[in-house]
Amino acid sequence: MQNGFEVVAADKDSKARRGRLTTAHGVIDTPAFMPVGTQGSVKGVSPRELREVKAQIILGNTYHLFVRPGLDAITRFGGLHNFMSWGGPILTDSGGYQIFSLAKLRKITEEGVEFQNHIDGARAFISPEIAMEIQAALGSDIVMVLDECVPYPCEYDYAARSAELTARWAKRCRQWKGQNSERAERGLTGSAFRRFADSMLFGIVQGGTFEELRRKSAQAIVELDFDGYAIGGVSVGEPEEEMKQAVESAEPFLPPDKPRYAMGLGTPPQLLEMIARGMDMFDCVLPTRLARNGTAFTVTGTLNLKNAEFALDERPIEQNCTCEACRGFSRGYIRHLIKAEEILGIRLITLHNLHFYLNLMRRARSEIEKRKFDHFRKGFVTEYKTRDAIERL
Amino acid sequence: MQNGFEVVAADKDSKARRGRLTTAHGVIDTPAFMPVGTQGSVKGVSPRELREVKAQIILGNTYHLFVRPGLDAITRFGGLHNFMSWGGPILTDSGGYQIFSLAKLRKITEEGVEFQNHIDGARAFISPEIAMEIQAALGSDIVMVLDECVPYPCEYDYAARSAELTARWAKRCRQWKGQNSERAERGLTGSAFRRFADSMLFGIVQGGTFEELRRKSAQAIVELDFDGYAIGGVSVGEPEEEMKQAVESAEPFLPPDKPRYAMGLGTPPQLLEMIARGMDMFDCVLPTRLARNGTAFTVTGTLNLKNAEFALDERPIEQNCTCEACRGFSRGYIRHLIKAEEILGIRLITLHNLHFYLNLMRRARSEIEKRKFDHFRKGFVTEYKTRDAIERL
Repeated sequence: MQNGFEVVAADKDSKARRGRLTTAHGVIDTPAFMPVGTQGSVKGVSPRELREVKAQIILGNTYHLFVRPGLDAITRFGGLHNFMSWGGPILTDSGGYQIFSLAKLRKITEEGVEFQNHIDGARAFISPEIAMEIQAALGSDIVMVLDECVPYPCEYDYAARSAELTARWAKRCRQWKGQNSERAERGLTGSAFRRFADSMLFGIVQGGTFEELRRKSAQAIVELDFDGYAIGGVSVGEPEEEMKQAVESAEPFLPPDKPRYAMGLGTPPQLLEMIARGMDMFDCVLPTRLARNGTAFTVTGTLNLKNAEFALDERPIEQNCTCEACRGFSRGYIRHLIKAEEILGIRLITLHNLHFYLNLMRRARSEIEKRKFDHFRKGFVTEYKTRDAIERL
Repeated sequence: MQNGFEVVAADKDSKARRGRLTTAHGVIDTPAFMPVGTQGSVKGVSPRELREVKAQIILGNTYHLFVRPGLDAITRFGGLHNFMSWGGPILTDSGGYQIFSLAKLRKITEEGVEFQNHIDGARAFISPEIAMEIQAALGSDIVMVLDECVPYPCEYDYAARSAELTARWAKRCRQWKGQNSERAERGLTGSAFRRFADSMLFGIVQGGTFEELRRKSAQAIVELDFDGYAIGGVSVGEPEEEMKQAVESAEPFLPPDKPRYAMGLGTPPQLLEMIARGMDMFDCVLPTRLARNGTAFTVTGTLNLKNAEFALDERPIEQNCTCEACRGFSRGYIRHLIKAEEILGIRLITLHNLHFYLNLMRRARSEIEKRKFDHFRKGFVTEYKTRDAIERL
């Protein structure tokens, strides 16, 4: 099975694509949602449950795993797949986003970024090369370049300099992978590392909310020839219109035969909007994070199951939903579990929410195959009411 | 299938019995361990996982369910089985133990006990009759009489008066069930209640640590003719020798053809000691509670997986264990999950611990069938080291 991406169908009235991404650990049908396994576990669910909700790929956070349990442990266990007992594909971020959002006392230089982690304050340094080395040790199927993710709002000049730095770092990542894939193949390194030659490397487009910078960044990154392209620095607090604009500014400059990954997105309507704009892959903590707060996704919007109105509600979270939670349990029972702080309540909502997101992607793929995706998107977005739960986040 | 109990084998060198208890929701092989589902959920696991670890019965706590979600909700959902999606047998306690250990401002009279619950301080009153009514609404397969559980230490006179009150309350429970089973059969009540005629009612022997009181209490309770007999007021802080003594004092006066339930026990060696003393049923929060603290049971004692020694340990919690946690995950990974406060860590240890307890019962049943139980007990108790984790509780 050769690594690679193919577009197998396209929508009639939008840029939506139906694709197939082949990795060392399996095939991913796109558009795809990737559940987030921050610390080597998708919060609340087991690898078996991830298979049951038909997740085809999960995401691991390099920064979190680097801080704890640390690379020695991951290496000892032969990489992240082995460590967490997940046999499917894994995409790891570079750690950059968390360094810029979680870590303390960051110092960014041309060489890389120095920081103190948020757990025990220990100092560490990550360069583009080190980001590659860490992800090689994790054994990721899809490796992300180290980038600088600027906050929102951000001035034009800073966003411009940052996007240029990100491009220079991307180049170093690309070079390192080229040189070390060969070394990995010769088996000079740990077992997860040995598979590094089979991994894919994705570049990341930055540029803040500036159309020109997004274009330039896309051109510079595409120039370096990656296996896929991510749009970073979106969903960092900017209005949704600016987020859409940032993606629209970069998309025309991305090669159509490579997968596109919109990072850290989003609500169900946002995912469909991004698919309509030619995006193929998504990751987001909303389904797992909101579940821990008692919030469930439905086609008409979110429900906060803590609300008293659900106390005697015998219906499942969502009528006709085929997830494990909806097949066996009522809103009233799940509300009771959440109020009583029982783990099972979080588990059931998490399973439902992941099923909802993954099912939405299945539906999107099917609608693209029928060339009716844009019609579906419009109908879904109209019906879906974003409630307080998300807006408060 | 007629409700009832039969002893199908007996040990050669101890009082251990291998039995079969038939209830409205299924058969329970004894000696049996009952996972505790305090608030309508066995903490950390799903009903499906309970079936997978082959739990044949679970326990529900009447007091907790009465306080939250309350009887209206449980009745609306057609009883506890429906509410929590558990199709197997359920034993419910009377609520007495929690009223005496958790609730505030208790006032005990001949009529019953008045208290303020520990959640919102609301006042409530439970009498023997109300305890029956609540358990009828829950739809329990095995209903426990309301008893007073005296603390340890306790003076002889108080323990004597309390045991006498418990016997008078037991009689009222017995009478209420007789009268209301008929009413329930005529369908005058809710759906769970309607099954009340099919439930079994167990009496409870009290008497503190006094041999004479245990004997008298057993005689008084047996006189009332229950479907089974529990020994209450054990494992409340007394030394293990006094606990054994309390059970030994009562056991000769219990009819051999009825199941015996030692309440709230215990460590793995304690369970085997109790089986050797003729006990058939057990419930205990240790497997689930210790799991949340990172502690796992093994045949050689407990392991605290938080300890640094396990960070790079690639072995499962217990070699040759067939539970889901041991089949898929290493000590090092589970330690990481617990340190990182990931729910999956608690889930995996809980599954292992429940499997361990249930498997210990399977082994005990098999050894009794071979008439070699006492030999097995001695060997197990010798090998098993109780570590700090339990002693600190």
